[in-house]
Amino acid sequence: MVQPSPSYTVALHLEVPASQKAVARLVNTATATGAVVTGVDVAEAGGDTLTVDLTADTRDSKHRGELVARLEEIEGVVVRNVGDSTFLAHVGGKIEVVGTYPIHNRRDLARVYTPGVARVCKAIYDHPERARMLTIKKNTVAVVTDGTAVLGMGDIGPAAAMPVMEGKAVLFKQFGNVDAWPVALDTKDPEEIIAICKAIAPAYGGINLEDIAAPKCFDIEARLREELDIPVFHDDQHGTAIVTLAALINALRIVDKRIEDVRIVLSGVGAAGSAIAKLLMAHGATDIVGYGRDGALSAKDTEGMNEHRKWLAENTNPRQVTGTLKEGLAGADVFIGVSSGNLLEPGDLEVMNEGAIVFAMANPTPEVDPIGAADYATVVATGRSDFPNQINNVLAFPGLFRGLLDTGITEITTELLRAAATGIASVIDEKDLSPVYIIPGAFDTRVAKAVAGAVRKLADRQGLAIP
Amino acid sequence: MVQPSPSYTVALHLEVPASQKAVARLVNTATATGAVVTGVDVAEAGGDTLTVDLTADTRDSKHRGELVARLEEIEGVVVRNVGDSTFLAHVGGKIEVVGTYPIHNRRDLARVYTPGVARVCKAIYDHPERARMLTIKKNTVAVVTDGTAVLGMGDIGPAAAMPVMEGKAVLFKQFGNVDAWPVALDTKDPEEIIAICKAIAPAYGGINLEDIAAPKCFDIEARLREELDIPVFHDDQHGTAIVTLAALINALRIVDKRIEDVRIVLSGVGAAGSAIAKLLMAHGATDIVGYGRDGALSAKDTEGMNEHRKWLAENTNPRQVTGTLKEGLAGADVFIGVSSGNLLEPGDLEVMNEGAIVFAMANPTPEVDPIGAADYATVVATGRSDFPNQINNVLAFPGLFRGLLDTGITEITTELLRAAATGIASVIDEKDLSPVYIIPGAFDTRVAKAVAGAVRKLADRQGLAIP
Repeated sequence: MVQPSPSYTVALHLEVPASQKAVARLVNTATATGAVVTGVDVAEAGGDTLTVDLTADTRDSKHRGELVARLEEIEGVVVRNVGDSTFLAHVGGKIEVVGTYPIHNRRDLARVYTPGVARVCKAIYDHPERARMLTIKKNTVAVVTDGTAVLGMGDIGPAAAMPVMEGKAVLFKQFGNVDAWPVALDTKDPEEIIAICKAIAPAYGGINLEDIAAPKCFDIEARLREELDIPVFHDDQHGTAIVTLAALINALRIVDKRIEDVRIVLSGVGAAGSAIAKLLMAHGATDIVGYGRDGALSAKDTEGMNEHRKWLAENTNPRQVTGTLKEGLAGADVFIGVSSGNLLEPGDLEVMNEGAIVFAMANPTPEVDPIGAADYATVVATGRSDFPNQINNVLAFPGLFRGLLDTGITEITTELLRAAATGIASVIDEKDLSPVYIIPGAFDTRVAKAVAGAVRKLADRQGLAIP
Repeated sequence: MVQPSPSYTVALHLEVPASQKAVARLVNTATATGAVVTGVDVAEAGGDTLTVDLTADTRDSKHRGELVARLEEIEGVVVRNVGDSTFLAHVGGKIEVVGTYPIHNRRDLARVYTPGVARVCKAIYDHPERARMLTIKKNTVAVVTDGTAVLGMGDIGPAAAMPVMEGKAVLFKQFGNVDAWPVALDTKDPEEIIAICKAIAPAYGGINLEDIAAPKCFDIEARLREELDIPVFHDDQHGTAIVTLAALINALRIVDKRIEDVRIVLSGVGAAGSAIAKLLMAHGATDIVGYGRDGALSAKDTEGMNEHRKWLAENTNPRQVTGTLKEGLAGADVFIGVSSGNLLEPGDLEVMNEGAIVFAMANPTPEVDPIGAADYATVVATGRSDFPNQINNVLAFPGLFRGLLDTGITEITTELLRAAATGIASVIDEKDLSPVYIIPGAFDTRVAKAVAGAVRKLADRQGLAIP
């Protein structure tokens, strides 16, 4: 059963008879519905009634309705207001634009705006490379989406995608001190998306493509990389690939296997799956079999495949395996899922090799129940925050862009992605490594520094950095 | 001669012999070059030498070079570093993107980002009108330019235009608490600019067009107003028109004339000039004659004119005046210049009527020297910050957009522009009104409130506000 979660925190404003017992009864009643009460505050006391603020995590909207109904049944209790903490956190949006140079008087105004600003404009006109120093370009990334593949919800459009893009901007700032701005586009045409990204580029030091459906995301990224002189990074592909490789590096240390030797079953051959396969191969993996809805991708049957799937079919699966995902698990060392929920029963994993590694990353429901999977696998990881070993993109993108902006690197190479993955993996010391701790947590402040450091080191080694 | 200004503040880091006299000599030498010393600080003292930070306003780069050379001639003085305060104010850009909801732990993360954010996305998908409440749309404006008409510099391109757009964003926030974001486009094609504005619109509650060359700015604005459901405002046109009308309302109170009765000479018939003419006419002006480079615009000769100029020729100049600007001044009550510097000698104004009003707004050099003009006119105003009565767009756009975003008004009508102008004019009490104080200063905090208030009042009256 689904657990109560902070995504469904309810904030209730109630009137209650003024007695210790009445308040206790509130909490008991709420708890009896399965809600987790996280706070009870008396907001006002006076006379026969108390005004009480009660916050509780619930499972979903239905559970919230039930909770309110049960509380209203208590004698003397009146529910004055039902607030939803998740929605309250989004009211007014989650980011703002703030000036970094205070304007107190006419002298400041004359420097920051007219007439002084004209000198700065002229300097950039004469020396275009100075835009990086004299504008926000040096620290600013566009988070570009067309809203066609948002989280698990698919094509919900640009307006509805905004809360995700704003959230991403918050994470960019908090973890990487990168200024990120949401660009949610009301067009699905790849050519138009490409043209717009090129047109808006002067303000930005990088572009993070986000939640754009496959296969067009591949072409958009490839074209922009070709045509722009700033780094372009599709997080759903490469961010996921980086954190997956990071987790795999540490998981393999636990089971004492080499990436060159393991058989890897990959469930999901969309944007994330393709990127994962390519990055693991670049890091030494030799035996990956990708599974789509119709079973194993193999070079023997590439009819009707788009070119990206065809590439996978022709460059993975060296043993020319055919058949279903379940059949493919026999003799596998690693399962990586970026597909959809509940494709497998835990018992299906029994046929995997000793020291099995299972990354069931479908969100919100993993490919296999992670608790059950632990009976058959040595290491289990998911994309969820409520199980150990969350494989979360937030470990990659803030530090990666921090490093890119600092160094001025414009090209995102496989080597760079590997450096970022190794950076994340290195945060966990050998002595701390354990089956439930193969990857650092989202709030581990060492992570972004390690990733940015890895990027800078690579830039130094390759002489790529722009001063 | 040009005065030293804060646009050319130099920050010098010097070594000086450790004596009172040596420091005094620094200041005297600097002052003797015409520089205005604004600060002398001893940064380090010890032994025989002092380290001194000296800041001074200079006239220009040449003057700065001369200042440094003179100081180096003083015995024992070494100039260690020459900093430019204007450039220093721009290093790293002038705005940043900041989260409004702090993320301290997993609970916060689950609300602001996955999985909680998915509920908010879904709510917007189901009820698109909720985007205004649950995203930044409600408070955010795009400042869009193609860099083709930046200040007095013309077509310097989008990258070099960024410092102005960032400065604008700073002013939006400081004076109107509006979040504004620079969109500097690497295209000059009107159709592409229109398509991009439409595509990026989901994130924004309004669009401020900025520094886009005429005549394409007219069409871009008209099309976007037609095709978008958020307000679109070309500041170079309507911002200038609003502040000009505001200043004229108060200037006419001083000379005790009615707008219906005055003869107005308008020098400059580009984007700003057209908008000024239209707004003054909407407010009651009956006799405006517009002058371009070839003299008075008249319905008698509209050959080869673009449609905007033709509109002016056919709808102004009721007396069918012909001839030059200077000739046109005879018998005029008001001169409004939005053209270029030094077109007139102060003596040319002698032929104007008693109680003449002169707004010489060309920047940085006014159409006529404002000091000299005061010998012939009762009220003189400019676009410059170093003369009384600065007619400055910053008085209009922050409060206007504050009002637009608060009310949800989507259409920018002439009535709205008039309300904004009246709002600005009303800030100055009858008793404070004087020929050198017809318009409030840029830092007068009452202004944006008055403008936003005027917009809200109009919305209430017309039933336009969206809750």
